[in-house]
Amino acid sequence: MGDASGTGIWIEPIADVRSPFEEKFGIPRQCGLAPHAQGEVCLREPYCDPDMLSGLADFSHIWLTFRFDRCVDQGWRARVRPPRLGGNVEVGVWASRAPFRPNFLGLSVVRLLEVVVAPQPLLRVAGLDLLDGTPVFDIKPYLPYADALPDAEGGYAATAPQPVLPVRFAKQAELDLAELPNPKAIRALLADVLAFDPRPAYRRGAEPERVYGMRMAGRDVRWRVGEQEIEVLALEPLL
Amino acid sequence: MGDASGTGIWIEPIADVRSPFEEKFGIPRQCGLAPHAQGEVCLREPYCDPDMLSGLADFSHIWLTFRFDRCVDQGWRARVRPPRLGGNVEVGVWASRAPFRPNFLGLSVVRLLEVVVAPQPLLRVAGLDLLDGTPVFDIKPYLPYADALPDAEGGYAATAPQPVLPVRFAKQAELDLAELPNPKAIRALLADVLAFDPRPAYRRGAEPERVYGMRMAGRDVRWRVGEQEIEVLALEPLL
Repeated sequence: MGDASGTGIWIEPIADVRSPFEEKFGIPRQCGLAPHAQGEVCLREPYCDPDMLSGLADFSHIWLTFRFDRCVDQGWRARVRPPRLGGNVEVGVWASRAPFRPNFLGLSVVRLLEVVVAPQPLLRVAGLDLLDGTPVFDIKPYLPYADALPDAEGGYAATAPQPVLPVRFAKQAELDLAELPNPKAIRALLADVLAFDPRPAYRRGAEPERVYGMRMAGRDVRWRVGEQEIEVLALEPLL
Repeated sequence: MGDASGTGIWIEPIADVRSPFEEKFGIPRQCGLAPHAQGEVCLREPYCDPDMLSGLADFSHIWLTFRFDRCVDQGWRARVRPPRLGGNVEVGVWASRAPFRPNFLGLSVVRLLEVVVAPQPLLRVAGLDLLDGTPVFDIKPYLPYADALPDAEGGYAATAPQPVLPVRFAKQAELDLAELPNPKAIRALLADVLAFDPRPAYRRGAEPERVYGMRMAGRDVRWRVGEQEIEVLALEPLL
């Protein structure tokens, strides 16, 4: 196992992600787009010896190699339709970061906020674009001299997606936020995520006043996209 | 398999690397340090359908997720001694890009020179830091807006390693090069690689005139490190 003889290899999760994203809908399309999307990378036995983390706190960012585990059942595709191309243009899966890929491996760079060694070793991170519970198979420090290529040509995704509309919180949403232990953080997270209009491309323009529900940060977030703004209507308790 | 339930996952190589690096000794310590280190990423069945590659040629760089397959037998370590710290200071393996890590997964960004679809689908790449035959488990386009963080703090590896000494080719080395089909390319590759003095840190300063042998590009490259220069003595046929 592990040589180039043609057989596959067996790899084990070394950590699990704790994230405010409890369903795929609403997750930023790349890491870093939602700076207020904070979470934890909780290291597993036997990979959580504090010895293994020494020196990591000197790095501002880390790579996470993970599995799109909630996509595996649907299988991989040879061609995909990137949201960046409006969802109606196909490219080869190797020309995309789509989850429906052979081996279902993902790669995200996140900001490292804190290295916690006790009681349980974990990494506090920001800029997450991962589902809660995502298994992590490797953690590497981000090396700017090797990894940062600002002049690289990014094909159909050469520039960052831009926020679509301002996000406004309705009175009920403000009242619901006030009940939460961390209203400011959840408010900032929702503003980050909704500004990009997470509706699937085929939904855009259709039913402008349709109310969407999105499970995030332990609440059922109700929102809609108006002409001039994206409005958060309420944060309802999960049923 | 593939969920966060705690069991590992089975992944399959989707490609194999063809590289001039036929042994670990001499391989650049990160991708991109040897721009003349060119090779190929040869896609395997059933992952080599040209459909899967459409759109990739518009990207200048790609990520390769690979296995340090020649390191697996030696097992992983909780602490490692990065060459960047002189080889005598330990850090945790999660704070390093060392190969001796749980799951033995590696990550390299390489320049995409050409997407070849026939007769066999392969990617011509440059800036390789991978052993010949390394199995690849994922290919992703490099997205500068998400992946390029030039202001990230790189800890003990904040800056790129610098060439140590000029590389000179002895007369015999020039004669040997002239016999090769691609002397300019091999000359440039050796200049890239040797300028960083690939000797293990504990060797530096010791036996200054010692002659080293390094299997590269199908030859046994003989070289030594003098006071003022690194000298390539000869490129001998492999026995």
